[in-house]
Amino acid sequence: MQFHLNGFRAGDPDVSEAVEVADRPGQPRQQPGGIPEEVDVLIVGCGPAGLALAAQLAVFPDIKTRIVEQKPGPLLVGQADGVACRTMEMFHAYGFGERVLREAYWVNETTFWNPSETNPQKISRSRRIQDTEDGLSEFPHVILNQARVHDFFLDIMRQSPSQLEPDYARRVVGLSIDASERNGGASHPVTVTLELIDAEHADLGPEGQIETIKARYVVGCDGARSSVRRALGRVLHGDSGNQAWGVMDVLAVTNFPDVRLKSVIHSAHEGSVLIIPREGGYMVRLYIELGKLNENERVSSKNITTDHLIAAAQRIIRPYTMEVKEIAWWSVYEIAQGLCDKFDDVPVDEEASRLPHVFIAGDACHTHSPKAGQGMNVSMRDSFNLGWKLASVLRGRSAPVVLHTYSAERQAVAKELIDFDREFSKMFSASPTISSDSDGDAVDPAGFQKYFMQHGRYTAGTLTRYRPSLISADPTHQHLARGLIIGMRFHSAPVIRLADAKPVHLGHTVKADGRWRLFAFSGAEDPAGSSSGIRALCSFLSDSADSPLRQYTPPGADFDSVIDVRAVLQQAHRDLALETMPAFLMPRKGRYGLCDYEKMFCPDLKPDQNIFDMRGIDRDNGCMVVVRPDQHVAHVLPLTAYAELTAFFANFMTQRD
Amino acid sequence: MQFHLNGFRAGDPDVSEAVEVADRPGQPRQQPGGIPEEVDVLIVGCGPAGLALAAQLAVFPDIKTRIVEQKPGPLLVGQADGVACRTMEMFHAYGFGERVLREAYWVNETTFWNPSETNPQKISRSRRIQDTEDGLSEFPHVILNQARVHDFFLDIMRQSPSQLEPDYARRVVGLSIDASERNGGASHPVTVTLELIDAEHADLGPEGQIETIKARYVVGCDGARSSVRRALGRVLHGDSGNQAWGVMDVLAVTNFPDVRLKSVIHSAHEGSVLIIPREGGYMVRLYIELGKLNENERVSSKNITTDHLIAAAQRIIRPYTMEVKEIAWWSVYEIAQGLCDKFDDVPVDEEASRLPHVFIAGDACHTHSPKAGQGMNVSMRDSFNLGWKLASVLRGRSAPVVLHTYSAERQAVAKELIDFDREFSKMFSASPTISSDSDGDAVDPAGFQKYFMQHGRYTAGTLTRYRPSLISADPTHQHLARGLIIGMRFHSAPVIRLADAKPVHLGHTVKADGRWRLFAFSGAEDPAGSSSGIRALCSFLSDSADSPLRQYTPPGADFDSVIDVRAVLQQAHRDLALETMPAFLMPRKGRYGLCDYEKMFCPDLKPDQNIFDMRGIDRDNGCMVVVRPDQHVAHVLPLTAYAELTAFFANFMTQRD
Repeated sequence: MQFHLNGFRAGDPDVSEAVEVADRPGQPRQQPGGIPEEVDVLIVGCGPAGLALAAQLAVFPDIKTRIVEQKPGPLLVGQADGVACRTMEMFHAYGFGERVLREAYWVNETTFWNPSETNPQKISRSRRIQDTEDGLSEFPHVILNQARVHDFFLDIMRQSPSQLEPDYARRVVGLSIDASERNGGASHPVTVTLELIDAEHADLGPEGQIETIKARYVVGCDGARSSVRRALGRVLHGDSGNQAWGVMDVLAVTNFPDVRLKSVIHSAHEGSVLIIPREGGYMVRLYIELGKLNENERVSSKNITTDHLIAAAQRIIRPYTMEVKEIAWWSVYEIAQGLCDKFDDVPVDEEASRLPHVFIAGDACHTHSPKAGQGMNVSMRDSFNLGWKLASVLRGRSAPVVLHTYSAERQAVAKELIDFDREFSKMFSASPTISSDSDGDAVDPAGFQKYFMQHGRYTAGTLTRYRPSLISADPTHQHLARGLIIGMRFHSAPVIRLADAKPVHLGHTVKADGRWRLFAFSGAEDPAGSSSGIRALCSFLSDSADSPLRQYTPPGADFDSVIDVRAVLQQAHRDLALETMPAFLMPRKGRYGLCDYEKMFCPDLKPDQNIFDMRGIDRDNGCMVVVRPDQHVAHVLPLTAYAELTAFFANFMTQRD
Repeated sequence: MQFHLNGFRAGDPDVSEAVEVADRPGQPRQQPGGIPEEVDVLIVGCGPAGLALAAQLAVFPDIKTRIVEQKPGPLLVGQADGVACRTMEMFHAYGFGERVLREAYWVNETTFWNPSETNPQKISRSRRIQDTEDGLSEFPHVILNQARVHDFFLDIMRQSPSQLEPDYARRVVGLSIDASERNGGASHPVTVTLELIDAEHADLGPEGQIETIKARYVVGCDGARSSVRRALGRVLHGDSGNQAWGVMDVLAVTNFPDVRLKSVIHSAHEGSVLIIPREGGYMVRLYIELGKLNENERVSSKNITTDHLIAAAQRIIRPYTMEVKEIAWWSVYEIAQGLCDKFDDVPVDEEASRLPHVFIAGDACHTHSPKAGQGMNVSMRDSFNLGWKLASVLRGRSAPVVLHTYSAERQAVAKELIDFDREFSKMFSASPTISSDSDGDAVDPAGFQKYFMQHGRYTAGTLTRYRPSLISADPTHQHLARGLIIGMRFHSAPVIRLADAKPVHLGHTVKADGRWRLFAFSGAEDPAGSSSGIRALCSFLSDSADSPLRQYTPPGADFDSVIDVRAVLQQAHRDLALETMPAFLMPRKGRYGLCDYEKMFCPDLKPDQNIFDMRGIDRDNGCMVVVRPDQHVAHVLPLTAYAELTAFFANFMTQRD
């Protein structure tokens, strides 16, 4: 954490000073109580996608954001709980990774239970595996109540310079886009009509009161029944589910020995249960198979009660017993896959002539089963992808054309997810093949386990790879950094910070602050030498008129405020003299021109911890790795490829005035 | 973290439900606004010692605690900043270790600068060392503004069932002990008179208003000029300092290359500077030598300004330069050592006949230089020592005689500290010997560095060793656990939790919750076997009338609520079947009788991480290790030494009704 740059300030460094606005002196910008007539971004829905976006935008006090939600207040219980490794990396960028690590259940191992070979009426453990492969991420796969994830985002929003709070108890009843204004840039082409639906709670006006708000951009994070999606005329295409499931968070007493391990249980004839241990050491989530539905049958019509769910679970886990003492939350649902063709308001054939102004994210544009724990994760990563793009366009740093990449990148991710989920759910719900009894749909238990393991990287969220676009380069120079794949998330590795010898993770320098990163890995020579590649690159970045830093950093802003350059050197940290390194890597910042000492890193020399080896960096030549504000690798370039670097940013960045 | 034991509860699990009291229904016990007439414990002073004690006592809603402070509100800036490894262990027990780790500066290395051999007018780096030796603690040595440490304790208090808040703007003007009542136990023998000194701020009454409060126990944590100490007639004996120092927290621009490393700088003729980098990446603390004072001269008489301090620092660090941009806080002081003979109200010759009711802690009973970063640390550890003892006596678990051990244990620690500080300060302030110029007082730079390194364990706080007493056994069986020394803090080591395969630190099970711990390390045999040492011990603890758990656990309370038993097994966690282990190690707890699965641990089999090897546990026979609520090892015993275990607790515990 860096703070006190512009002077010592007492108190919690996570709490920003509120930014006042000219028209409401003495008050921070986004005090609740009354929706303004115009905003830059209106977010609809306080689920994971909406809050991740709001928390991202709240750090920019120059962007006027509002988030509305039809529920009367924050979520307290239930819904999603899986947090994939990749999502933990993202949480860390927002600043609350440690809180989640402390409070969550850690999924360390997964066990598989199947009908016993000797007595198929009983289940027996067939396999026990490590849940996440070593080295996949510096973070574990964890489980935490979605409501707590919301709380952490709400804290980030509250502590931000904008002091952003949701406006609850408001339902979208209308959305229109003014076609004449929508490519104008300076205008507010989207008009949204909101209805107050719980006046007593919101204390803001009579129930049914209508508010109208004009926005530059609207993002629908309003779930599977999204009003925003409907207003765009988009549809969730897909299969209606015909497999019913129940889910329960319970406090229970059981003699099932793996109740504190994630356990996949297939009984011979009673169906399946997935056991997900929960935070706090006592609670456990059960996903319980409730059998196939008929064509057009809805699970809600079956009047399933918690007694049904408990009885089903008890039958499946025989010979073990389970006595449920308290049900914290429960639900029934059918598995249904659904996907929108596009995640914005621009038809495919109008992309060249029209810029997007309305977006949809999360369940509003993709739905699937909760079984692989992907929903909340993919939804938040949707808005992590969109947030920095909106911010960079609104702040005049990127051309609005980058906004097309949101739908292009995330719709492809969602498509993969739907395909994965279809296969995974099918295998999950199939009866296990057992010697005494099998039918055509049955799945070999070993086959399911193999599928589960093969897709561990996928479910961890680390396989997402964006295709080449104006913000994601072709892999021409990928061989210079074989472990930092263009299009994929920057895979962190341990390093030692040169100035203070602190062991840190290089990837943790990539905060959710809208900045681009340029990691310069040094070649074989002494980086302090007068002709070293690092020094030459620093000279280019610092002095050349073609330097992206010179072109895009606003006058008066810190030189790392748009593109943050960090160097990774090959030498041990005690073998380099700080004072001999290029001054560019100790930039002077803030009102006092203080030196930022956190730009240079050296390898951790403990066994198997050297970042150059872990990430396949070309030790002879070094390289540049360009990382997007959402932590995805955008480019890998030779250390000397100044023109290519300039050309890459020129694709989409806006020169400063 | 364990929570939801007695039912699911939404929200932050660190925030306890407030406990209501009979005489003020609807209100939590310790709402601010008006001091009650009687309390169990009155703490005087909101420094580190007072707050560590208040935070410890606040978790017990059955203890009525108040803490008063003469300042009008919480500390915002300045004073101490060093947090030793041992203190980090303690912070983790309170529950805020992660917050400190995230926010603090980490002291990774220390450098030593001395007059250059070629040109003694300039300083040059003579050595660079690792600050803390590997394996000394699982936590680093860190630096953080004392005000933030206060904030974390205040949060713990606020979130506790007592919702304890300090009563500010109150000065102690009288303290008396009723001799007739003081051994009564049920009475409130101490009367304290408080004067309101900042009525406007406190909003509680007219300035000068007097409040009288009766307490069972009073703890003076009110600093070097302690009113409580004065009321006891105790004196800080020691040397008046004749060495003046200045201290400044600055934002500065410098070309001194080690400004982000802890640096000890001795110039040839201009004195010494100690550089302590600070949290946030920009601020730095400077301790600046200001020369010897004359007999009876006070540093305050010298009218030293920040300009003097800056000029002195600039002379000392030549040839490097430093331009100070902002001074966040500064002070001047003379080094003085002082120590009280006893830390309570009972004269040495009356210990057999009288019980203590008033205690002093922190600077109230020991003062010394801040140079070795010990003050805040030792003060908080004073009250960590006292807190559980007060709680256990007030809750009827321990005989009041244990309260004598506070002064006995902590006065000895303070005595060692004063002796260390005298030597350390002398060496620090001495001129370095240089070839061209030396006098009798000069210290060889290599000698100072060697002294610094030799005392690394001492300054880390991990060498503290309490002498045998009724709560700390003789080391008869120490050979069974050579690395867990009786009297010293329980040195944590990594383990794998059996039920959920989570890698954790065994020592982190020792929370600041007033409970004793009994770690049972298994011998060579299968712990699940019918005659294993672990199983036999479990039978004794569970069933025998002599079992300390049966004797001291109140009726209806969880069986681990007084003595928390945890087993450490030798087998790899996948080689043990949970369901075959003694049921005693999966205790049923809370209103639902839920199973606590966090009592069994296995070694971490990564290289050099096996707890049995790291802590020298006898692998053939195993052993028991008894740990006090303040994390110090109280006893090491053979696994079969039931009678000795019973006898140890019988020394001081109170049988349940």
